Amino acid sequence: MASGSSFGKNFRVTTFGESHGTALGCVIDGCPAGLELTEADFAPYMQRRRPGQSEFTTSRNEDDAPEILSGIFEGKTTGTPISILIRNKDSRSKDYSDIADIYRPGHADYGFDAKFGIRDYRGGGRSSGRETAARVAAGAVAAKLLESAGIRACAYTKAIGPVTISKYDENEINDLYMPDHDAFLKASEYVRKLSAEGNSAGGIIECIVSGVPAGIGDPVFDKLDAMLAHAVMSIGAVKGFEVGDGFDASLSSGFDNNDAFIPDRDGHIIKATNHSGGILGGISDGSDIVFRCAVKPTASISMLQQTLDRKGTPREIMIKGRHDPVIVPRAVVVVEAMADLVIADALLASLGDKLCDFLMKYK
Amino acid sequence: MASGSSFGKNFRVTTFGESHGTALGCVIDGCPAGLELTEADFAPYMQRRRPGQSEFTTSRNEDDAPEILSGIFEGKTTGTPISILIRNKDSRSKDYSDIADIYRPGHADYGFDAKFGIRDYRGGGRSSGRETAARVAAGAVAAKLLESAGIRACAYTKAIGPVTISKYDENEINDLYMPDHDAFLKASEYVRKLSAEGNSAGGIIECIVSGVPAGIGDPVFDKLDAMLAHAVMSIGAVKGFEVGDGFDASLSSGFDNNDAFIPDRDGHIIKATNHSGGILGGISDGSDIVFRCAVKPTASISMLQQTLDRKGTPREIMIKGRHDPVIVPRAVVVVEAMADLVIADALLASLGDKLCDFLMKYK
Amino acid sequence: MASGSSFGKNFRVTTFGESHGTALGCVIDGCPAGLELTEADFAPYMQRRRPGQSEFTTSRNEDDAPEILSGIFEGKTTGTPISILIRNKDSRSKDYSDIADIYRPGHADYGFDAKFGIRDYRGGGRSSGRETAARVAAGAVAAKLLESAGIRACAYTKAIGPVTISKYDENEINDLYMPDHDAFLKASEYVRKLSAEGNSAGGIIECIVSGVPAGIGDPVFDKLDAMLAHAVMSIGAVKGFEVGDGFDASLSSGFDNNDAFIPDRDGHIIKATNHSGGILGGISDGSDIVFRCAVKPTASISMLQQTLDRKGTPREIMIKGRHDPVIVPRAVVVVEAMADLVIADALLASLGDKLCDFLMKYK
Amino acid sequence: MASGSSFGKNFRVTTFGESHGTALGCVIDGCPAGLELTEADFAPYMQRRRPGQSEFTTSRNEDDAPEILSGIFEGKTTGTPISILIRNKDSRSKDYSDIADIYRPGHADYGFDAKFGIRDYRGGGRSSGRETAARVAAGAVAAKLLESAGIRACAYTKAIGPVTISKYDENEINDLYMPDHDAFLKASEYVRKLSAEGNSAGGIIECIVSGVPAGIGDPVFDKLDAMLAHAVMSIGAVKGFEVGDGFDASLSSGFDNNDAFIPDRDGHIIKATNHSGGILGGISDGSDIVFRCAVKPTASISMLQQTLDRKGTPREIMIKGRHDPVIVPRAVVVVEAMADLVIADALLASLGDKLCDFLMKYK
Repeated sequence: MASGSSFGKNFRVTTFGESHGTALGCVIDGCPAGLELTEADFAPYMQRRRPGQSEFTTSRNEDDAPEILSGIFEGKTTGTPISILIRNKDSRSKDYSDIADIYRPGHADYGFDAKFGIRDYRGGGRSSGRETAARVAAGAVAAKLLESAGIRACAYTKAIGPVTISKYDENEINDLYMPDHDAFLKASEYVRKLSAEGNSAGGIIECIVSGVPAGIGDPVFDKLDAMLAHAVMSIGAVKGFEVGDGFDASLSSGFDNNDAFIPDRDGHIIKATNHSGGILGGISDGSDIVFRCAVKPTASISMLQQTLDRKGTPREIMIKGRHDPVIVPRAVVVVEAMADLVIADALLASLGDKLCDFLMKYK
Repeated sequence: MASGSSFGKNFRVTTFGESHGTALGCVIDGCPAGLELTEADFAPYMQRRRPGQSEFTTSRNEDDAPEILSGIFEGKTTGTPISILIRNKDSRSKDYSDIADIYRPGHADYGFDAKFGIRDYRGGGRSSGRETAARVAAGAVAAKLLESAGIRACAYTKAIGPVTISKYDENEINDLYMPDHDAFLKASEYVRKLSAEGNSAGGIIECIVSGVPAGIGDPVFDKLDAMLAHAVMSIGAVKGFEVGDGFDASLSSGFDNNDAFIPDRDGHIIKATNHSGGILGGISDGSDIVFRCAVKPTASISMLQQTLDRKGTPREIMIKGRHDPVIVPRAVVVVEAMADLVIADALLASLGDKLCDFLMKYK
Repeated sequence: MASGSSFGKNFRVTTFGESHGTALGCVIDGCPAGLELTEADFAPYMQRRRPGQSEFTTSRNEDDAPEILSGIFEGKTTGTPISILIRNKDSRSKDYSDIADIYRPGHADYGFDAKFGIRDYRGGGRSSGRETAARVAAGAVAAKLLESAGIRACAYTKAIGPVTISKYDENEINDLYMPDHDAFLKASEYVRKLSAEGNSAGGIIECIVSGVPAGIGDPVFDKLDAMLAHAVMSIGAVKGFEVGDGFDASLSSGFDNNDAFIPDRDGHIIKATNHSGGILGGISDGSDIVFRCAVKPTASISMLQQTLDRKGTPREIMIKGRHDPVIVPRAVVVVEAMADLVIADALLASLGDKLCDFLMKYK
Repeated sequence: MASGSSFGKNFRVTTFGESHGTALGCVIDGCPAGLELTEADFAPYMQRRRPGQSEFTTSRNEDDAPEILSGIFEGKTTGTPISILIRNKDSRSKDYSDIADIYRPGHADYGFDAKFGIRDYRGGGRSSGRETAARVAAGAVAAKLLESAGIRACAYTKAIGPVTISKYDENEINDLYMPDHDAFLKASEYVRKLSAEGNSAGGIIECIVSGVPAGIGDPVFDKLDAMLAHAVMSIGAVKGFEVGDGFDASLSSGFDNNDAFIPDRDGHIIKATNHSGGILGGISDGSDIVFRCAVKPTASISMLQQTLDRKGTPREIMIKGRHDPVIVPRAVVVVEAMADLVIADALLASLGDKLCDFLMKYK
């Protein structure tokens, strides 16, 4: 059956490609015509996901300059599928032959074999984090579309292990994408210590989407927060998702958790607080959309672990090579990309909601 | 555009109906032929969702005996759509006319108006918790299918407000669906206190799915945990979702979080621990699937709240009538139903995964 | 797997129900909010499909007054699923018990058993023509939506057996829905003769959709004519579909088949001829959409036929009871309904095509 | 909205690319794991679609050696998306600049502008017949899958203009793919005469799919013949589709049109005749599936035609360059590819039909 490599109904992305295959990429079907788009638009997004940039990321060399193969004419989208290709350049297959028969703890190896009976074991194949390069490229297109509607998603590291930010300083630029310099310093120390042991760390990513008008999203199964949860939980290593007050809402009372509707100075409807995280009953309520996700520690560690091979024989494994001691900073832009894809999809869907718009156009 | 009232690809459910309309129900397309099914199969599930059963639930009288309209012949499913109808019997529209123009805090009222420009204000209309009756009926069919494959989902209340269970006693039966008698007593006290003020409480629901073989689910966008997140976050009032160690995984290290693969006494592959919650890389790993969700406090409270009407005029509202002081116990079976739907869908999808099976059948 | 009981992406219809079950009906998800709709809107459409009205239709008594269960509030659509219920009243199961084990020639009986291993044999079950009652009800909603955009589909009988109409007289009303009185008289004679032998006739239905603006439909797999073909070929007994000049186009030359673009008196772009049938490259070209379909002779005949039962034992069958000697006149409104559904779906999809519209609304 | 560039639910193909862009290709999601596949498997199919091979095809030079980018490991499919890339090599954009503003009769130019407000005018862009190269590559994968189940689709030219074959000689190989040498000679003369005037011809393609077991396909909207109609009508220039006796069935009687079920010498159920074309009620009946489609004459002709430009100004156009005087022979393999895709999709869907299979596997 179709392996679930497509996302979205109206702004629909299909990704393909394995970690160490020839190439990976995506096809976007549903981007409206007339959007200005060039390959340069990808750079700032791809740059944030790229490895080998700091002490906290693997040194694998990926150039990752996406090539647009279709869907653009004279610098603008044409409404037809936009296909984007990213060649794999640094795919040293030899590094992975020793794990061909072994089920790495914390990885999808065993599940792949159980599901398909065959597995591209080179670097995790399709389940590698490298697959997210295609998501980020697609997200860049969605972001450009949203920008034209005044909408912007912004993700950052909320916590690394036990170190949580206590402020949002937009001028703070660091390798962990933590907008709080003190937290960054403490988190760096935390990661370095685990990394020195060959161990790894996890963390929490927060994302804020501003500019979403009220009335976007669906009221039943495809609630806007359900779609965001689907999108974000589909990123490997993400183990939890929450919107607004999230799990803390379970500790609150109705009176404290409800947000009062009030008029702004222009008389428009806004909310006095934002416990809801910008979504009520699955539909945007005009406030910023705020959500968080939990990222588990990198599964690939340079420590001795017990496991089994395909035949069920006990084996010891110590994963060679250099891996990200913490995957959170590189996942930040992936979370943002998935948010962009969800909001773009919901925004396009909303165009058909009101008959009056329909009539204005066609009658 | 289609309002997102369908869920699933292979075991596909479409629900319809408003809180105070004529009826609500669902159509299930994709249930395999040959499954024994009668209307009596719904009773134990509907009973758990039904209001008016304890001091913690609204006294609205819903009989909720689902009627099967199609898809069954001589007591078995035929492979064609199973449609299920639930008539609304206790729909006192007069109770709701006073809130026709007011945006209730914590509810979808404003979003509905912003989205559709029109709203069935009677009891929340389509966004009412009553919509979940159709989900529970559909879930009962999925559960029966899963039962035949040795799979069973079981949900219960993990926490009410700050009161968390510290054991799972399967013999403990109480109105809060908390499998820990001491916790139940404390939680009851907590809810009673808030309820006496006209206020409300939230909580956490946990669900364990046992018997799922390794290899179920998809590796990319439709990861099994992403589908569960989508399904569970689509229940009104749910604000967070986590699988396995969830948010706590962000505090762990790779070495502690990875689960070792070991042989069981028959030599089959199992895991020594279950930090993953039964899913790795989006695919089931053979362990129990374990997830939790956070439920916000009931939005309808009998306390004075500030809000606006459709024209943006400030209004005060105190929601009349009796409402559930805590929605958690009634949501338990809804969470279980959504889990059943997700697993049934993924299980059917997995039938096409291996070519060898394909060839055995057709050649 | 989902049994293909849904149609459309944006204006999406799901039907359910068997010929002799409790009820049949449909759920429409995606009808925009604000459309005025009452149960009276179904009457003129249901009336055209109803049996027992002339010498050419079966005398089965179906009242077929569709009941709206949801999605309407104060006389208008709310944007949520519209569910429509049609109870089966004249379901005399006893008539069908003798064919429970026999595969009727020209029917789906054998395929159902091969596919599902179980079959509701009462009157064809899910494969009965009665299923189209739900399509007609859904089509009536689509027609009302299209009417508000100035679009109208109109189907009629083009031919019965060898008798083809030679004019379109809109004032000609007859039981065969042939808009040519002379052809009607000849065709009546043709059908009567076959009917007297217990035999049956086929024919051709033509449909013209006027008012569709240029630019509707998709350019690749979901071409507007491909969607119409899918929709119309999904009606039982339809064996062929053609648009514009159809099969005759294969006999023409490029010069004769191409339609010249010319200005109308207001300078708007129109076509001098309409060999294309209003669709070029899958997209509407502004001319009337014109298509035809071939309907096979009714499979249920009162003549002795050779066949097999489930065990492969040769059996003779003569189908009892009265059946339509020709299904064409009752299928006319079904063809029209399917056209309405396709055009409504494509029209809603087109709302997102142009970014400029998008920006006007959101920025 | 998504521009309809995907086809199939279980064996799902997404195509991308314009006639004169960088590349075109496809992504296949849902091909089962374990199928042996190499780039050499494409050659026999691509060869049949390739231009420049005879006097009846354009001399455009396309190498069209598809490159597999993903989804294959050690020579076998892995169950993950198979992406296929075909670079455009002979894309002389300069040939097309003169038609940038003109609406070519018989082409999608006007519709594209009306729909998207922008158009890649180079060689028809996305609506070019070149898009079918990606379909043929995808079809080759489906064909290989079907071959392993003993299923084979075979298409050929049934008629060119008024010249129809009167036999099927499998040893007859010619440039028009007509399996009747006499008909080939007459048809060649017919095409040459039109071609000499700068004009073009149409024809009819027939396809036979053998080896499909009874029980494949869906009974309602997604009938197997409806899916074939959708697939085949989605090929540019196809204006009609019929299955079995097709339009001739409208002239027959029920007694003559019904196929008797009889036992074969092994006691298996077969049909004495095949008026149905192998599909009854949307489900395969075990006989060969037989369908035909009508192909209009090539729209690009070297004769003077009247038309308009984007501003509505009358213009004369004579399309330069060499075009296929008849598109039928090159479309034969495209029709076959679409049939392969439909049958592969339906076959995979059928895996979930019977609960018994389900239980055998999982319990």
